[in-house]
Amino acid sequence: MLGKEPKISNSVVRRLPVYLRLMQTLKNQNITTVSSQEMGLRLDMNPAQIRKDLAYFGEFGRKGVGYEVDYLERKLCQILNLDRHIGVALIGVGHLGIALSNYTRFQSEHIAIAGLFDMDPQKIGSQVGSLVVQDVRELAATVNDKNIQMGIIAVPAPAAQQVCDELIEAGVKIILNFAPVNLRVPKEVVLRNTDFTTELQSLAYFIAD
Amino acid sequence: MLGKEPKISNSVVRRLPVYLRLMQTLKNQNITTVSSQEMGLRLDMNPAQIRKDLAYFGEFGRKGVGYEVDYLERKLCQILNLDRHIGVALIGVGHLGIALSNYTRFQSEHIAIAGLFDMDPQKIGSQVGSLVVQDVRELAATVNDKNIQMGIIAVPAPAAQQVCDELIEAGVKIILNFAPVNLRVPKEVVLRNTDFTTELQSLAYFIAD
Repeated sequence: MLGKEPKISNSVVRRLPVYLRLMQTLKNQNITTVSSQEMGLRLDMNPAQIRKDLAYFGEFGRKGVGYEVDYLERKLCQILNLDRHIGVALIGVGHLGIALSNYTRFQSEHIAIAGLFDMDPQKIGSQVGSLVVQDVRELAATVNDKNIQMGIIAVPAPAAQQVCDELIEAGVKIILNFAPVNLRVPKEVVLRNTDFTTELQSLAYFIAD
Repeated sequence: MLGKEPKISNSVVRRLPVYLRLMQTLKNQNITTVSSQEMGLRLDMNPAQIRKDLAYFGEFGRKGVGYEVDYLERKLCQILNLDRHIGVALIGVGHLGIALSNYTRFQSEHIAIAGLFDMDPQKIGSQVGSLVVQDVRELAATVNDKNIQMGIIAVPAPAAQQVCDELIEAGVKIILNFAPVNLRVPKEVVLRNTDFTTELQSLAYFIAD
């Protein structure tokens, strides 16, 4: 999508950061090459699946040798656009918003929250980490000024669609939604929903009788 | 696993709550039957995939008629063990823990957080919703008393493995981990990791060049 190979499924894309993290771990352990078997063992995955996933993007491995850790890390960063700075707007500075803000600040060097927004006058102007919470009415201008490309919606469900519309109106095409509501977005927008209730419910499947 | 059909993959299990939620939505709209085509439209999914997923669990649909909403809802609840009360222990009452606690309290009638735990003396004894934060040293006793079956780990990464070990020691076999760390668990434990960084990194793939 958006100029990439259209055949690559969402589930493949979601596994790429897992491979990337493994390459970073291996690098820290001074391991320079890794086989798909070893990757499979470390990730509890099928090695054939790993080889197939990576083959979508090029010929990274060599028979009998495996993957060069450093090279594959660099390639995965390129594929995931993590070779550049990516600015994120986070809307909704409640407990979840603050948790997400703290979390991403420490975990990723390339993706950074560049703007925090809320509509609550009590929150606007307060400091969270290195950012000052802005009025959500400043969203469009800030998206523009700071070249923000991704949005995180962490507002209560009733406010989520309006925030979503405003993000899209401002030019954001990639949205991660934490509000428990089905958002309507145009076809060109990539929307991913994170829903803790669904997660817990699907885990309940494994409860022994 | 745990006495269920072993062939059913995690990705199928993760879609079941999505179907359940749709049945509940349809019920609220007084819709009594639904075809896989209509489900596919509403969920932006392939109808064949939906039929295949549901067929793992029985013959729920009828050709030319579709699924009876009420019946399928009841069946999905049974399959997901949501026809009974499920108690959850949440460890780590920071911003994320409070957000999760608030969130699940309002979203699910069958899954309820039955215990909140922290090691910070300043948090122990404080009220969050209807629960009082307990000392994490009371975890095993509370799991036992309240028949807790699932655990949510929302502590910082360095503390996560110990908390995980304590949950398992207390008899919890299903764990949802929010700490950005790879936890080691025995084979009989179902561990799912939720990682915001991975989520954001995979979304970065869709950034247009």
